[in-house]
Amino acid sequence: MQIKEKNVHKFHINNILKKLEEKDMDAMLVANFNNIYYLSGYLSTSFAFLIIKEDPIIFVSGMDMENAKNTSSIDIVKYESYDRMIECLKEEGIRNLAIESDLTANVYQKFNDFNLTISDAISTERMIKSDEEIEKIIKATDIAHKSLIELNVRDKQEKGAQEWECAYELGYLMRKNGASVESFDTIFASGPVSSLPHSTPRQHVLDTPVLVDYGCKFEGYCSDTTRTFIYTERQEEISNIVLEAHDKAVDAVKAGVKACEVDKVARDIIAEYGYGDNFIHSTGHSLGLDIHENPSVSLRDQTVLENNMIVTIEPGIYLEGEFGIRIEDMVLVDKKGKLIGNLPQIL
Amino acid sequence: MQIKEKNVHKFHINNILKKLEEKDMDAMLVANFNNIYYLSGYLSTSFAFLIIKEDPIIFVSGMDMENAKNTSSIDIVKYESYDRMIECLKEEGIRNLAIESDLTANVYQKFNDFNLTISDAISTERMIKSDEEIEKIIKATDIAHKSLIELNVRDKQEKGAQEWECAYELGYLMRKNGASVESFDTIFASGPVSSLPHSTPRQHVLDTPVLVDYGCKFEGYCSDTTRTFIYTERQEEISNIVLEAHDKAVDAVKAGVKACEVDKVARDIIAEYGYGDNFIHSTGHSLGLDIHENPSVSLRDQTVLENNMIVTIEPGIYLEGEFGIRIEDMVLVDKKGKLIGNLPQIL
Repeated sequence: MQIKEKNVHKFHINNILKKLEEKDMDAMLVANFNNIYYLSGYLSTSFAFLIIKEDPIIFVSGMDMENAKNTSSIDIVKYESYDRMIECLKEEGIRNLAIESDLTANVYQKFNDFNLTISDAISTERMIKSDEEIEKIIKATDIAHKSLIELNVRDKQEKGAQEWECAYELGYLMRKNGASVESFDTIFASGPVSSLPHSTPRQHVLDTPVLVDYGCKFEGYCSDTTRTFIYTERQEEISNIVLEAHDKAVDAVKAGVKACEVDKVARDIIAEYGYGDNFIHSTGHSLGLDIHENPSVSLRDQTVLENNMIVTIEPGIYLEGEFGIRIEDMVLVDKKGKLIGNLPQIL
Repeated sequence: MQIKEKNVHKFHINNILKKLEEKDMDAMLVANFNNIYYLSGYLSTSFAFLIIKEDPIIFVSGMDMENAKNTSSIDIVKYESYDRMIECLKEEGIRNLAIESDLTANVYQKFNDFNLTISDAISTERMIKSDEEIEKIIKATDIAHKSLIELNVRDKQEKGAQEWECAYELGYLMRKNGASVESFDTIFASGPVSSLPHSTPRQHVLDTPVLVDYGCKFEGYCSDTTRTFIYTERQEEISNIVLEAHDKAVDAVKAGVKACEVDKVARDIIAEYGYGDNFIHSTGHSLGLDIHENPSVSLRDQTVLENNMIVTIEPGIYLEGEFGIRIEDMVLVDKKGKLIGNLPQIL
C-alpha cells in the first residue's frame, strides 16, 4: 500500500463521514466489494463488511485474510459472526446506521436493531472520477478499440465465423492488449437478434447487421463501447438516425446540464423520425469500477453533470423480428463533453 | 415453451405456494434472475419481478419484453413503476409478502407497507435436482473435464505459459466442447498464490504447484472442479492429506446424513495431520443454476442430505507464502454418494 493511495482512501472516507454526519448517521455498513475496494484497496472474493466511522474497520472472511493484509489501507479484523459485529457497533454507541441500496435482505434484517437508512454517500463520491481513474478508463477504452479493429468484424462475417467465436476472440485480443477481463459479457448479436438489446452470443454464423457491445477492465476500471456493422440500405437508413441522436447527445454533454436533458436530446431525434417506441432503454449511464454507476442518462435522472464525470451515450433503434442498431461511446464531462477514444462510429 | 416445461414450472410454483401458505404468506416477490428462470423459463438481462400467487405474473422491463414473450410460461406485463406493482398487490388483498434473502435494500424499503419475511421456499425447492437438471450438470462436468485434459497443464507448465493464457484457453476449449460460458471466473493459480483460495490468473509464467478451480455452464447449469498439479515431495505430502480428506468426505455423502457431518469428516482428517488452521473454508456447497446453492457442506449447516441433491467436496490446505492444494469434485446424493465425472484426482 503506497502512501499516496492511503491518502486517497482517507480523503474519500472523510468526505463520506461528512455526508453521514449531515444526515445524523453515526456510521455506514458497506458490503459491496467495489465500494470496499474504492475505499481501502482491498478487493474481497467472498464476503466482507466495512464499517465507516472515525476509525474505520473491515471484517474479512478467514479465507481472504492474507489478501486483505497485503492490500487494505484500513485496519482489518477476522469476521466471526454477525453478533460479534453488531456488539462491536453497539459498544461504540452507534444507533443510526447508513446502508447501501444493494445491501441484501438477509443482512438488512440482521441489523434491524439499528435505524437503517439507505445512503448514496459512496455512489455520489464515486461519481466524480480522479485523474488516475480517468486515465484507467481511457486506457481500457484504447485497449478495447484497438482489439475490435484487430478482430476485423467484416472479414469474420465474410468468412462465416460464429457469434460466440468472435466474442471469444475479442476477449482474447483485449487480454493480449493488456486488459484483465471483459467489463461485462460481450454482446455479439447479428441479424434479427440484434433487436434484443442484451442478446447472448450464439453458435450461429454472423448474419447482418452485426451489433457488438463490449468492453474491458484495466486495473479494475471498465470501458463500454457499441458498434453496429451495417450492410444494407435499410440498415444504413436506421443507422443514420441513431448516429444523429448519438452525435447530438454527445454534444449536449457538459458540466451544468442535467442527465435527463441529455437523454431528451437523443430521444427527441429518434421520435422525430417516428421510431420513439423503438428506443426501449435509457440513453446512457456512468461507469467506473462498475459497468453501471450513477448518474444514469435517463428520462428521470435529474443529476446535474459535473466535471470529471463519465457517461455513456448509447441510443438505439430496435425493430422486432428485423434488426437493431446501437452506437455507444463514453464521454468525459467538462466545459464541453470529450469523446473518449477515437474509434470511428461507422466501421 | 413446451408443455412439459410449462408443467414443471407449474409443479414448482404449486410446491412454493404450499410452503408460503403454511407460513401464512399471501404471496412472494421474486427478483433473482435464476429464480425467475427456474420458475418460468424466462432469463432476465436487466430487471424483472415475479409475483408468486394463485395467478403468478412477471413484471418485465421494456427492453426484455420480446425475449420474455418468447420464453416465459408465466403471464408477463410490462414494468411501469414500483407504485403500479404495489397497487396491484394491494388490490388483491396481499399483506404478508415473502421475499428472497438477496432482495436488495432499495426494493426492500419500497415494499415496506407489507409484512416482509425472508422465505427459503425457492432455494429449498431448488435443492432437489430433477433428472433433467442432473443430466445438464453431468454434461457440464464432462465438458469441463475433457477440456482440462485437452489443455494439458503439465505441457503448458514446461513451455512457460502464463496463468491468464491457460485460463483463457481452458475457457475456449469448454466453449468449443459445447459449454456456453464459464460457471465462474477460472482460478489458475501457481506457486505461492495457490495459497489464496480465490486467486486471479496473472500475467506470470506457471510456477508450481498449479491449482485450477474452474467450471462451465451447459444449458444454464454449472459444473465445479478443482485439480492441483503437484511437482515436489513436499507438495505430494500435502496433496496426499487433502486427497484422503476428499475421498473420505465423498464416501460420507449419502441420503440421511447431515451436511455438517460430511464437513466434519474432511476437517477432522486435516486436523489430525496438524493442518486444521490451514483449511480456511467450508468443505463444499451445492450448485445448479448458481455456482453456490444450498445446502453448504460446512460446520454449521444442519441440512439432512436427500436423494438428488448435488454437493461439491473440496477440502484444501493453504500454507501462506508457500503454496496451497485443493481437490474438488461434485457428488450426487443417493443411498451412496456418486462422484460425477471420472477425471482422476491426481493428474
